[in-house]
Amino acid sequence: MKLTILGCYAATPRSMTNPTSQVLEIKNKMFLIDCGEGTQVQLRKNKLKFSKISHIFISHLHGDHFFGLIGLISTFSLLGHQKDLHIYGPKGIKEVTLLQLKLSASWTSYNLYFHELESRMPEVVYEDSKVKVTTIPLKHRIYTNGYLFEEKPAERKLNIDAAQEYEIDTCYFQKIKNGADITLDDGRVISNSTLTFDPPAPLSYAFCSDTQYLEDIVPQLRNVDVLYHESTFLEKEGHLCERTMHSTAQQAATIAKLANAGKLILGHFSTRYEGIEPFKSEAIEIFANTELADDGKVFEF
Amino acid sequence: MKLTILGCYAATPRSMTNPTSQVLEIKNKMFLIDCGEGTQVQLRKNKLKFSKISHIFISHLHGDHFFGLIGLISTFSLLGHQKDLHIYGPKGIKEVTLLQLKLSASWTSYNLYFHELESRMPEVVYEDSKVKVTTIPLKHRIYTNGYLFEEKPAERKLNIDAAQEYEIDTCYFQKIKNGADITLDDGRVISNSTLTFDPPAPLSYAFCSDTQYLEDIVPQLRNVDVLYHESTFLEKEGHLCERTMHSTAQQAATIAKLANAGKLILGHFSTRYEGIEPFKSEAIEIFANTELADDGKVFEF
Repeated sequence: MKLTILGCYAATPRSMTNPTSQVLEIKNKMFLIDCGEGTQVQLRKNKLKFSKISHIFISHLHGDHFFGLIGLISTFSLLGHQKDLHIYGPKGIKEVTLLQLKLSASWTSYNLYFHELESRMPEVVYEDSKVKVTTIPLKHRIYTNGYLFEEKPAERKLNIDAAQEYEIDTCYFQKIKNGADITLDDGRVISNSTLTFDPPAPLSYAFCSDTQYLEDIVPQLRNVDVLYHESTFLEKEGHLCERTMHSTAQQAATIAKLANAGKLILGHFSTRYEGIEPFKSEAIEIFANTELADDGKVFEF
Repeated sequence: MKLTILGCYAATPRSMTNPTSQVLEIKNKMFLIDCGEGTQVQLRKNKLKFSKISHIFISHLHGDHFFGLIGLISTFSLLGHQKDLHIYGPKGIKEVTLLQLKLSASWTSYNLYFHELESRMPEVVYEDSKVKVTTIPLKHRIYTNGYLFEEKPAERKLNIDAAQEYEIDTCYFQKIKNGADITLDDGRVISNSTLTFDPPAPLSYAFCSDTQYLEDIVPQLRNVDVLYHESTFLEKEGHLCERTMHSTAQQAATIAKLANAGKLILGHFSTRYEGIEPFKSEAIEIFANTELADDGKVFEF
């Protein structure tokens, strides 16, 4: 998996920071997560191909997470995009997008599908042969979902030496990779574990922005490889969390610890802070493997 | 007048260009004209104070001219803006803005007034003691207006030497600056022209984007000091003007010449071109005093 942070700062703009948006690449598929104002320019700056995006996941309808969506949808048309585009997000996202297209007398050069979300329970919203995406219901001022991206187990790796030793015909190789045992002509059964190696463990990535501290999500995040969790505030401003329904770095770290996450990435920093290093210092007291998001930063895992 | 170009490129985004938006300052008032995506960041980069903006004029509802509006409106609230904000633009701008605010469960910290336009004839949309703003009906794929900003004549300048020579009491000075003649105690009438100098001539600025070549606007632009006119294409791509309803640099120059404008500023360059200098070369063949807009460029006149 490769995660590119296009923007990871909270709402009030500054000249050099961008609101939330990130691109997750899984096995050559590209998923866009949130789409704050300026996302299309950030895609350009980070040299990510617009044409590879077919699925966009919007967490909630606060402007710093979705005001860039309509511009991106329009640009896809200007570029003559042909592939279907799927938008996942809260109910209302279809109405407002279509109204904007109508007012500009525009249409899309491609099929545009909306998958509007209303459930307060986790639901699988996307699935193909390699990846499954499930909502993570969060608690914020308006209806909000995080998203859990889970790779499916890859096929087993053929032990070519063992296959040759038993003189197994190549026409059985795909069956073996799918997990089958093999019965030889002489009746001997060769177990799959003899003929294959374990594939790399499937990876998982959870995106949780924006939310107040919410232990309810921990079971769903159990053993997640990488957790992106918002940390709008430092401890000193922790009293603002209740009203704004955001989290501190230490709260994000606590969720990562409780979930036994492999790595924590912090983001959605309030623009009141001059630097973001203190977010890391505060978080690592609770969860050591913490890193900071930053606009343009790439994580590979 | 001081004009700051925040963005002057046509729709398809590139990493270093911005869609249409500009700030016109007239006698310490700041008017925002169009508001493409990223305008709020451009305001920051150009160190223009958000708090001075109370009037925003939107030409039409194509995304590259108004997708940044909702972000700016939201940011005004985040910053605790208190002053009334007036939005002038095509019918529909109110519905889409309010829908976006509703979906994000947001409200403004200030009074937000919409002045929706539908007329196909020029109309005065704003007027105070110093400035008058009139729509310039344009011809584009959707309903579009340019805007004509006209300073009102300033009061006359007192000739203090003349006033002292005739021993005129200071309590008459404001009357004199307003244009009155003065009758002395001995019955002599001193004409205003003796007592005052002409004030600087009032300036005018016309913003015309987007439009196909349209001679109908020439009478309204007659003798305008500065004309900003779109020039999406060079001559070589002139055949695209009819379908897209845009203009070439030479067409913009022709309008400037017919209107006897003082200066022409070209903008709304298609992002297909690597450099913009050819727009100037083509325009000056028809209208010599042509300049190129560019993001961040400031014109004072």
